[in-house]
Amino acid sequence: MIITLTTDFGLRDGYVGAVKGVILRLAPGATIVDISHEAAPFDAADGAFILWQAAPYFPPGTIHVGVVDPGVGSERRGLAVRSGGQVFVGPDNGLFTPFLTAEAIVRELTNPQLRLPNAAATFHGRDLFAPTAARLATDMEFDECGPRVRDPLRLAGWEPTFDGHWHGVVVHVDRFGNCVTSLPADLLAPGVQEAIVAEFPPIPAGRIYADVARGQPICLAGSSGRLEIAIREGDAAAALKLKRGATVTIREKK
Amino acid sequence: MIITLTTDFGLRDGYVGAVKGVILRLAPGATIVDISHEAAPFDAADGAFILWQAAPYFPPGTIHVGVVDPGVGSERRGLAVRSGGQVFVGPDNGLFTPFLTAEAIVRELTNPQLRLPNAAATFHGRDLFAPTAARLATDMEFDECGPRVRDPLRLAGWEPTFDGHWHGVVVHVDRFGNCVTSLPADLLAPGVQEAIVAEFPPIPAGRIYADVARGQPICLAGSSGRLEIAIREGDAAAALKLKRGATVTIREKK
Amino acid sequence: MIITLTTDFGLRDGYVGAVKGVILRLAPGATIVDISHEAAPFDAADGAFILWQAAPYFPPGTIHVGVVDPGVGSERRGLAVRSGGQVFVGPDNGLFTPFLTAEAIVRELTNPQLRLPNAAATFHGRDLFAPTAARLATDMEFDECGPRVRDPLRLAGWEPTFDGHWHGVVVHVDRFGNCVTSLPADLLAPGVQEAIVAEFPPIPAGRIYADVARGQPICLAGSSGRLEIAIREGDAAAALKLKRGATVTIREKK
Repeated sequence: MIITLTTDFGLRDGYVGAVKGVILRLAPGATIVDISHEAAPFDAADGAFILWQAAPYFPPGTIHVGVVDPGVGSERRGLAVRSGGQVFVGPDNGLFTPFLTAEAIVRELTNPQLRLPNAAATFHGRDLFAPTAARLATDMEFDECGPRVRDPLRLAGWEPTFDGHWHGVVVHVDRFGNCVTSLPADLLAPGVQEAIVAEFPPIPAGRIYADVARGQPICLAGSSGRLEIAIREGDAAAALKLKRGATVTIREKK
Repeated sequence: MIITLTTDFGLRDGYVGAVKGVILRLAPGATIVDISHEAAPFDAADGAFILWQAAPYFPPGTIHVGVVDPGVGSERRGLAVRSGGQVFVGPDNGLFTPFLTAEAIVRELTNPQLRLPNAAATFHGRDLFAPTAARLATDMEFDECGPRVRDPLRLAGWEPTFDGHWHGVVVHVDRFGNCVTSLPADLLAPGVQEAIVAEFPPIPAGRIYADVARGQPICLAGSSGRLEIAIREGDAAAALKLKRGATVTIREKK
Repeated sequence: MIITLTTDFGLRDGYVGAVKGVILRLAPGATIVDISHEAAPFDAADGAFILWQAAPYFPPGTIHVGVVDPGVGSERRGLAVRSGGQVFVGPDNGLFTPFLTAEAIVRELTNPQLRLPNAAATFHGRDLFAPTAARLATDMEFDECGPRVRDPLRLAGWEPTFDGHWHGVVVHVDRFGNCVTSLPADLLAPGVQEAIVAEFPPIPAGRIYADVARGQPICLAGSSGRLEIAIREGDAAAALKLKRGATVTIREKK
């Protein structure tokens, strides 16, 4: 059984290790896979994006634990989400927005057996979400987690808008400075269109980085199926002053 | 069999990979778990804290390899420590202080079979500690490691002091800027007490981050069972200028 | 079956997770081992060095996926390299130079079955190299990958030169600031020789860090079998202004 971890715990502290220990204690033989522990601190949207990049590639039955959880210890609910043949376990703060499809079933983690004895108020990743994942991987049915939830929190702004042109926003800046947008890649016609960001010259649409010279900007279908703004072997976010939330518009090349 | 790794090797180089390769070569099928490779370089106290956060959550029989080892190549001993049903393998420099309980049994790694042929003088993690863990996970008994050690090195300053008030120190600053202290959390009475650090206003004791407004400081029982100084969705270490070693005092609220 | 990963993807994004998901989907039960995801971006030489530090320690039959791939999407070939009883899968850009021995067999990844359906032009790590590794770990023979390649790209400058003295270059600066050179360690006679870098005083040859006082430079046989310039408990790269490519000469002590 595969259990993945996506958190904002970082890699310096023992937090991730404690979570892994709990899982291996309760689900001996589980395969634990790190997706990322470097989500931006307290930023559920960043965690949601990372999960969305990776989770669909895992086998059916995979259990994904997500912990980007500024509200830990408050009244926010803990959730288990069954979606697309996989299960997601974590806080009810929008982290699982990409998986809250019409078919998804959501349950609140109220079953007291899901919680470690002496659970800390500030570490649900270790004391609630990890044991829940381990129990779901071994001896507990999804429906036993707790009652159905009909109104899980969803993040706003994942959908592009249209007013003659398509407008989207940068939803993620990756390590290389590539800027992933909310615009579906199939809106893009390489060679025919261009992208407009702020006051910069239009950015030509291409198919691969090598369609432009080194250091030149390009917009292209990113590996996650959305339009990306990139600079070949360069840092688009820095050069074009793009941050998450920046507006991107597609239009016909003039 | 589970073998964990806690080092200051960082994640850029091939050092961690080499250690994993050695383990998988000698103990095929071992489950290797990364606890952290970002312990502060050369800082055994930091490594000890990270191990202490994570190790207790692992199943009995887990073997923990710890390598924060400024003295590698010198005369400092290599140790195997059996404590709390688990085994710790690494240098004799205080890294295993939290596990050196009265019941712990410590042995020096003198058995020549524990060392890789052509061992490098500067990489005991790969050439001595990894093979020792792999051998202990497969075909060697703990007692075969070498002779008993009665005087393993211990780190100073893990115990709080009392002079009418309890005084402790910051023992760890985590990724979020939360400051973990040496004061046991059960000294703390939420709502009744407050913590004093340097010249700042007293910090109220609470139960969860949400007990204070965003950006406000709080002291509370941390997830590792000790008193922590935190700022809700903020960085306490930066705001309160706290570093490891800074004094923290608990007193009744005035 | 063991599949290792060495990339420049970094640890923030979901890229590494997606690669792992693909592998676990196609090769259930594979043991995935992270070597490093922090190779310098776009820098095949850095990736080659990291792989060279770690790969030889893994068991025969290990499959190493390497993705440091500035040319992704261009015409550069994808390769599978069989060398030293292991297999390497990744781009043809020099990343596998250390393993391109006389006995190595190299094949181009042309078999269409190696590619994920709907493969992205910009993410061969996920859509070509990961599935290739998974197929090689399960149901495909090495020779089925594609035709032999006789001219894989090799990185220049891995060999030292001799003109009365041996001259090499810094090939890697590790996390601690230790500078690994291209000079084989067996050229070094501790106590007899010294290393010259730029305008700094000669650096004595020793056997272990503790041969010099804290803060003092030393050159010694590094754990990877090459001469290293280090400062005991310090950062040699910073103190001696050494970067990759800097010249290092060995001579008799005067």
